[in-house]
Amino acid sequence: MKFASYSVSDGATKPLQHGWGMVDGEFIVPMTSAWPTLRDAIGAGSDAIAARAGKIAALRIALNSVTLKPPVPDPGKIFCIGLNYGKHIAETGRERPAHPSVFVRHIQSFVGHGSGVLRPWISEQFDYEAELTVVIGRAGRHIKVADAMRHVFGYTCAAENSVRDFQKHATQATAGKNFDDSGALGPYVVTADAAPPLSEMVVTGRLNGEQMQSAPVTDLIFSVPELIAYLSSFTALQPGDMILTGTPEGVGMVRNPPRWMNVGDVFEVDIQGVGRLSNPAIQENK
Amino acid sequence: MKFASYSVSDGATKPLQHGWGMVDGEFIVPMTSAWPTLRDAIGAGSDAIAARAGKIAALRIALNSVTLKPPVPDPGKIFCIGLNYGKHIAETGRERPAHPSVFVRHIQSFVGHGSGVLRPWISEQFDYEAELTVVIGRAGRHIKVADAMRHVFGYTCAAENSVRDFQKHATQATAGKNFDDSGALGPYVVTADAAPPLSEMVVTGRLNGEQMQSAPVTDLIFSVPELIAYLSSFTALQPGDMILTGTPEGVGMVRNPPRWMNVGDVFEVDIQGVGRLSNPAIQENK
Repeated sequence: MKFASYSVSDGATKPLQHGWGMVDGEFIVPMTSAWPTLRDAIGAGSDAIAARAGKIAALRIALNSVTLKPPVPDPGKIFCIGLNYGKHIAETGRERPAHPSVFVRHIQSFVGHGSGVLRPWISEQFDYEAELTVVIGRAGRHIKVADAMRHVFGYTCAAENSVRDFQKHATQATAGKNFDDSGALGPYVVTADAAPPLSEMVVTGRLNGEQMQSAPVTDLIFSVPELIAYLSSFTALQPGDMILTGTPEGVGMVRNPPRWMNVGDVFEVDIQGVGRLSNPAIQENK
Repeated sequence: MKFASYSVSDGATKPLQHGWGMVDGEFIVPMTSAWPTLRDAIGAGSDAIAARAGKIAALRIALNSVTLKPPVPDPGKIFCIGLNYGKHIAETGRERPAHPSVFVRHIQSFVGHGSGVLRPWISEQFDYEAELTVVIGRAGRHIKVADAMRHVFGYTCAAENSVRDFQKHATQATAGKNFDDSGALGPYVVTADAAPPLSEMVVTGRLNGEQMQSAPVTDLIFSVPELIAYLSSFTALQPGDMILTGTPEGVGMVRNPPRWMNVGDVFEVDIQGVGRLSNPAIQENK
């Protein structure tokens, strides 16, 4: 199954409506009447969602008539992993870490598929980062590596775009990772049973159609099960929580000269079997 | 005005009830019927809250009959500032920073006044940190330093307790700062007009009654208005967002030998005119 969250406005006649639903080809089957948000549905479990989805398939909304939002619009926690691909660590000149490097983004820093990502007026160093994102399904604390995959609901793509000068203002990356509307999530959450195995996923980032990043998920230094185990060693993961697993080599800041995103650039994150997330860069108004 | 959030259970006869209200001496005047949470009320503004509070003062709940929660139980964002007191920077051997060092905690890592803070079984390096916390009242982006105080709703105390070995697992402090129930917020939010001016506040931390930390807020390297301006340079601050402004010198990890919190230790954060937050350390069950 694939799920999306969206907003839709019928011109000036109706107020903005928010919803979520099951993606069926070029349509969304709304499921907002069953659970207010996809996060609530994830908490109920895949089986409950599937049972309910079979009963409310009458109404269909054309995907091209809605604005897609981040598929889980209200996650409790968004953990991001830094420097988790070997070649990306090499290109930044750092050493292989002993533990995952974890930072946090707020949902306020993300838009959905197709919307513009905001190039800040306060910085020129707006960089792209393609990442596989894990969506937690089942709550857990102190999860063992061997049990970790049972806590995965599904996957989506992330453009974990960064503002590099702000990222380097201090040892903590928070500022450069939390510019409003600077990143993107989506288009959909694909449930784990409908996605390829992690061993077959490849994360590719393209800027205006040109491949800038590409690495198999097997290149992750800390694998998805290891990340789930580590994060749950200090906090209980909850349904809808997200883990952005890190970006492969090829980001803009390490190129010579650096390749910053400019207005009109389109960055695409492509993970076959998970989705293709595409967003143009637009200028933040001063 | 002072506000608290609480839960109350009437033994086995009633389910757990959550609420918030105005603190009046040793009582709480519930205001949950006006706005579901204090965060919603803050969004409506101090004047609206004051007007409403005058009308619903009939019911009063004894403070000692409830469990206090973090006063804003569902903040959208919790920003924490590292190394923001000059002498604390000196004791950690670091240089004075050019920009604030910002990390994020999730609300899941905090309990309210009086509850036990969880000493993890996975680490022995459970350290105390007393901090002044700013609660944002009015939303804003790109706020100027001169305008910043108009965006403050009020203040509360934080025990921004850290698990030091996890904090040092990587450059990013997230893991050591987000152990579930490791920190505390409260007891109340005191509105800015009812609190002393920042220039008169002193943040004191006591362990089992012994003063371990004490510094005037005027010692902050980045002042409250400067923090608001900096954070809002990358993200829109929203009503209920919190800023933990940093801890003074005297934390446990720099003592010789280090002074880690053990089960039964009680850490108290005292800011005269804002509140006195007290929490015993209890052991996380393995």
